[in-house]
Amino acid sequence: MAITVETVSRMQLTADTLRREGKRIAVVPTMGALHEGHLSLIRLARKHADVVVTTVFVNPLQFGPGEDFGRYPRPLPKDIMAAADAGAEYVFAPSVGEMYPEGFQTSVHVEQLTARLEGAVRPGHFRGVTTIVAKLFTAIKPHVAVFGQKDAQQLAVIKRMTVDLGFHVDIVVGQTVRERDGLAMSSRNVYLTESQRKEAPVLYQALSLARDRIQQGEFRRATLVEEMRAVISGRSSASIDYLSVADAVTLEEVEQLTPGKDVLISLAARFGTTRLIDNIPVRP
Amino acid sequence: MAITVETVSRMQLTADTLRREGKRIAVVPTMGALHEGHLSLIRLARKHADVVVTTVFVNPLQFGPGEDFGRYPRPLPKDIMAAADAGAEYVFAPSVGEMYPEGFQTSVHVEQLTARLEGAVRPGHFRGVTTIVAKLFTAIKPHVAVFGQKDAQQLAVIKRMTVDLGFHVDIVVGQTVRERDGLAMSSRNVYLTESQRKEAPVLYQALSLARDRIQQGEFRRATLVEEMRAVISGRSSASIDYLSVADAVTLEEVEQLTPGKDVLISLAARFGTTRLIDNIPVRP
Repeated sequence: MAITVETVSRMQLTADTLRREGKRIAVVPTMGALHEGHLSLIRLARKHADVVVTTVFVNPLQFGPGEDFGRYPRPLPKDIMAAADAGAEYVFAPSVGEMYPEGFQTSVHVEQLTARLEGAVRPGHFRGVTTIVAKLFTAIKPHVAVFGQKDAQQLAVIKRMTVDLGFHVDIVVGQTVRERDGLAMSSRNVYLTESQRKEAPVLYQALSLARDRIQQGEFRRATLVEEMRAVISGRSSASIDYLSVADAVTLEEVEQLTPGKDVLISLAARFGTTRLIDNIPVRP
Repeated sequence: MAITVETVSRMQLTADTLRREGKRIAVVPTMGALHEGHLSLIRLARKHADVVVTTVFVNPLQFGPGEDFGRYPRPLPKDIMAAADAGAEYVFAPSVGEMYPEGFQTSVHVEQLTARLEGAVRPGHFRGVTTIVAKLFTAIKPHVAVFGQKDAQQLAVIKRMTVDLGFHVDIVVGQTVRERDGLAMSSRNVYLTESQRKEAPVLYQALSLARDRIQQGEFRRATLVEEMRAVISGRSSASIDYLSVADAVTLEEVEQLTPGKDVLISLAARFGTTRLIDNIPVRP
């Protein structure tokens, strides 16, 4: 069984004790509704630390108006069991009031990296992400934090924030876990209707095509984007938010790829009201 | 002698070692040019911790265009000696490049509290302050941080940031140290010409008058401000930036004081190009 911690002060005292004992602490931040993707991150965290803390907190700050904060799934007892089974000793599950008490007015902001892609479509989203991650770092005092490749821009932004503010935390990346048909696992997949669910693997098919075409020597962004668009439009009813071929570090769009210089192929698309994202890192 | 530390990674390793030994760490953040006010903070820090780290860093982020970043005094060897004499074991004196390496793009921002007083006159100033203080906290991992009452709004903003981001750090306040004629000690006092220096105690005289008048029962902000203005204008050539009678916690102006509810009487004024601030907390 995992120990559930609900307050910051209790979490900090626990962290202080673990550190005095020389234990290495890993944190796996999540919004709960744990699926195999999250569980793979917890198992990865175990390899990097003596003690794993999984956090379960649906962070209101990173949802925009009209987004799915209210209906986001919150199966906490099930999450606690699943986290423990995967190897977490602690589940940090604070209330919204515990994390954002009255009078709260501080935010952590990463500038350029958040202006593009998800940041452009979801204003304020990454400010909410970096603020809560900074707070999770001060609460849990981890040596290591594990994030999934699935949220590639979030990963880049959190790496930047960690370096810039000097948090003494190693960032470890877990690969995206996919369903058998290629759909990236996401807590939001449950929103899909049966027919949308059947179409959704088209996103990974488009990304895979772009990766294959790059490996065949197609280095022009415009062509890659056009081919991805044709796949998605031809095989689904999805409405595309963006298709991106970007520098893997700065996330700036790259018109012409350079051999050896990593890029991130990423996209966001909507099936009805459900918005999904996915990506593949590629070395041309 | 104090040990001088110039890199974040070295400072973090030192902090980790001290914490494993069960030592309590205090930090006294300064921009150097140490005077008796700073030294009193270092002595105060000693009472709250086993090990005192004084930081000396002239933080470019908290200076606006046209402010005195370039000419701010930087007598580092003298500062290191003075800090050691006052009881600091470590002086953390990083370069600008160490704190803000290329690509740096993250900031910490406190919203409402920074909109008034100094924040209104110096846009971006407090964002620079909270960003560097957050970075000093992650570098030094202190149990306690000591700040002076002299920068009253900075103190309120840092307290807010510390609570909001959940830094596990106690904030301790050191009283303002004054010259014999009442002028608050400041590294910027060296900019004053001889005749400006003679006029400068008028600021404390005005604040003291307001305190005395409150204690006599004068609870109207407008009257208190008018009387302070008359003192400063009557006895000096200073140009007043602001005169404030504000709630001690929110820093919002208070039109009518309430018995028992703490206020902060504060002001900023310029003698030529030299800008000075001062304040007195008062319980009506």
